Amino acid sequence: MSKKQEQEQPVILITNDDGITAPGIRNLVEAVKDLGKIVVVAPDKPQSGMGHAITIGHPLRLHPVQVFDGVEAWQCSGTPVDCVKLAVDKILHRKPDLCLSGVNHGANHSINVIYSGTMSAAVEAAIESIPSVGFSLLDYSVEADFTAARQYARLIVEQLLATPLDRHMILNVNIPALPPELIKGLMVCRQAYAKYEEDFLERNDPHGRKYYWLTGEFKNMDEGTDTDVWALENNYVSVVPVQFDLTNYVLKDKLEKMWKQS
Amino acid sequence: MSKKQEQEQPVILITNDDGITAPGIRNLVEAVKDLGKIVVVAPDKPQSGMGHAITIGHPLRLHPVQVFDGVEAWQCSGTPVDCVKLAVDKILHRKPDLCLSGVNHGANHSINVIYSGTMSAAVEAAIESIPSVGFSLLDYSVEADFTAARQYARLIVEQLLATPLDRHMILNVNIPALPPELIKGLMVCRQAYAKYEEDFLERNDPHGRKYYWLTGEFKNMDEGTDTDVWALENNYVSVVPVQFDLTNYVLKDKLEKMWKQS
Repeated sequence: MSKKQEQEQPVILITNDDGITAPGIRNLVEAVKDLGKIVVVAPDKPQSGMGHAITIGHPLRLHPVQVFDGVEAWQCSGTPVDCVKLAVDKILHRKPDLCLSGVNHGANHSINVIYSGTMSAAVEAAIESIPSVGFSLLDYSVEADFTAARQYARLIVEQLLATPLDRHMILNVNIPALPPELIKGLMVCRQAYAKYEEDFLERNDPHGRKYYWLTGEFKNMDEGTDTDVWALENNYVSVVPVQFDLTNYVLKDKLEKMWKQS
Repeated sequence: MSKKQEQEQPVILITNDDGITAPGIRNLVEAVKDLGKIVVVAPDKPQSGMGHAITIGHPLRLHPVQVFDGVEAWQCSGTPVDCVKLAVDKILHRKPDLCLSGVNHGANHSINVIYSGTMSAAVEAAIESIPSVGFSLLDYSVEADFTAARQYARLIVEQLLATPLDRHMILNVNIPALPPELIKGLMVCRQAYAKYEEDFLERNDPHGRKYYWLTGEFKNMDEGTDTDVWALENNYVSVVPVQFDLTNYVLKDKLEKMWKQS
């Protein structure tokens, strides 16, 4: 490829929260590697559940690694959000055209968008005016079949690259754990109100002191048929557009009226 | 106080992200302690910038401590979000009537709502159907003057307890670093589009290997006069109602139309 052709290619930053050696990120790189110039910057260890954490109290390490055939890759000692920040400032020295995060091992639908390191990396990119997509497969196992995830990731990235993108666009894409022929297609949805009901497991250490493990049962409190949970239960790939303006405008209007009267 | 009176009092859970020994949480407890039955569950160390992180890979510790005069208090080895989850499941065994987080040492306006452990604790409470308020003072120093923060925290909590609350209500309250007489009052606002422009500081360790410190400069890209940044610059206490449904409904409609045509 000539220098000129390379310059015309879109630059795609890829990260995740399961760590740079996870099968999910390998499958994502494979799925899209001919669609642009790929640069991977991902955590050197699993960072699930890190949400939008950033590293303030410790310095960060960043090392180039040979993990993907013919693809520039760096491992970082920080969180997924740190990876995006470092990639832009210290590796790319520019904003990439697109940021992809995942493929996460396990679901990130409904409220999980808030806890997910995968989605927080995507949100961080969009805050920095880089359109982004987070991908998650509804299968936790290391041997998960990523065939459908690869197919849909590629389809979505092709569609996005073909149209001018909103710089603050974030998509949360979840893929059912099914062979592609059983998936009915893409469904654009809203985030379901569904969450884990916590139930901490209490144990005693060898010194007789208590400790707790976070466990819980997933509950869907949302009866809508336009949600990501509904889409996934009905064998669709769910696509939820996400935003980082958390203002509750309905409550804003209500409070303004209430507090004016009082 | 009789058993009956105690049962009628609202139960107020207080947490923070600066740790249970920070002056901010002590000031918040003092400001509201006669307004209900207060239970403090807060991190045993600073957890700034932890965002909505939860602890999955390690067990959690929880110990009763005597830190506040006559107030039940527990320190937890986890993140602010862990504190809220553990408080409900293992300490209160019920949902408190209100959750307060802070007072944070430093601003949590604009995009900082996403990185902030203080606000994530408040968001977690609201996910669990507990109305919540996060408070932050625009002063990082340990010697900060919390007079205005205490006064406004009390005013807001009194107003909230006097009206039936939306179970999913979250308020992000920031207080200017000013004496009360110079503060113009409360202003209900939206979240400004303002953020830190990252600039990692590069250093070499004694072995010649590079490491990076996160630094950055705060930039306001938002010219609105209805934002939290505007309110604070104009000496108001900013109150932003926050939500945990991150769906971008405008983009949802757009994508549905676009993808139907293609």
